[in-house]
Amino acid sequence: MTSTTSDTGQKQAIVLLSGGLDSSLSAALAKEQGFAINALTIDYNQRHRRELDAARAVAQSLGAERHIILPLDLSQFGGSALTADIDVPKGGVAEEGIPITYVPARNLVFLSLTLAWAEVVGANDIFIGVNALDYSGYPDCRPEFIASFEETARLATREGQEGEGFRIQAPLQYWDKARIVSEALRVGLDLSLTWSCYDPQPDGTPCGLCDSCRLRAKGFAEAGALDPVASSAA
Amino acid sequence: MTSTTSDTGQKQAIVLLSGGLDSSLSAALAKEQGFAINALTIDYNQRHRRELDAARAVAQSLGAERHIILPLDLSQFGGSALTADIDVPKGGVAEEGIPITYVPARNLVFLSLTLAWAEVVGANDIFIGVNALDYSGYPDCRPEFIASFEETARLATREGQEGEGFRIQAPLQYWDKARIVSEALRVGLDLSLTWSCYDPQPDGTPCGLCDSCRLRAKGFAEAGALDPVASSAA
Repeated sequence: MTSTTSDTGQKQAIVLLSGGLDSSLSAALAKEQGFAINALTIDYNQRHRRELDAARAVAQSLGAERHIILPLDLSQFGGSALTADIDVPKGGVAEEGIPITYVPARNLVFLSLTLAWAEVVGANDIFIGVNALDYSGYPDCRPEFIASFEETARLATREGQEGEGFRIQAPLQYWDKARIVSEALRVGLDLSLTWSCYDPQPDGTPCGLCDSCRLRAKGFAEAGALDPVASSAA
Repeated sequence: MTSTTSDTGQKQAIVLLSGGLDSSLSAALAKEQGFAINALTIDYNQRHRRELDAARAVAQSLGAERHIILPLDLSQFGGSALTADIDVPKGGVAEEGIPITYVPARNLVFLSLTLAWAEVVGANDIFIGVNALDYSGYPDCRPEFIASFEETARLATREGQEGEGFRIQAPLQYWDKARIVSEALRVGLDLSLTWSCYDPQPDGTPCGLCDSCRLRAKGFAEAGALDPVASSAA
């Protein structure tokens, strides 16, 4: 199989889009590289459901060709603060170890699902917004995992066996949050549409205290930029 | 983490259980090896929904500790005769190539989901019923794929990084359908509960003509056994 192109002659990419800062930038970079965007958002019954609205808004603002929000109720398995009835930690980003907000095998599950769609759409490029900061805590954000997955994907699929296979593109892999914010501003991503907080407040604002809020705030501060999404703790 | 054990002191295993002959035998073999069975069935909006009832019946007959039927609507992606509006081939098992009944990246997606549950349950053993016959057509049934997935799983998960990791057990890997039927009879699996047909008839009987029916019939014939699930084409 050769890559299919869209009506406008663009090559297709599947982009994992959570609606957060990182995956939204990853989508914007795919667009910048000339890909037609097929955005995949997994509705895994996450506590921070505000993410799904953010994903819709970002996909629309980037002119995505298709956007699928796929329900997948990982809370049936339990085991993570993002899906089960466990409190989201607010005490600051842990120095070491795997955080309780780790969702078992999440990126493996999500990347596997992108392949199922990629084979149908005819996309050979998969974009995922993993980065060096997550690297410190989540095993499935590390370059070794991405490389291994690429090889498994080659062996698992028709396209991997009969075609050119898949490239897992993780453009943010080695960037810190300051670089991510700077790149987002450079490509003109509308940051007001993105959502990072794990535990939104009743008034609809970010908590400002969870790991994700803290990392985002640090990124904006170090990039010398103002976050258009105001936090209630700011 | 060390493996958790059930109330009865058994080690936990996750078993992918479709309700077909192969996965049901895989579950029975896990039980024979002394594992407590956590059966995972994926409701991927398959045409042959009779499978789900079979999975329930088999899980119950084997005394499974837990059984999760997880909805995952792969038909949103399309592209397979098992999920999209494409006719299931009835002309005989193809000699070569990947069949249209191939579901893009299915085993990769399903195995990834078993890991998400395994990390929570504390299981280090995952059972999957892939075998040598599927090997001929589906890329994600081959030993190379299983081995590569095991390595990716090690890199993707907390348990892989901090614990003993995962063993992907594919006990039927090198068996033909005759051996599979014989082993099923040996371990006392109730074959009347299993379901293989991709395209059940309106009267609730197997079509007898799809690849899955043909392979099953061949297995019973070669094993010199009678299939308790009667086909309308018999």
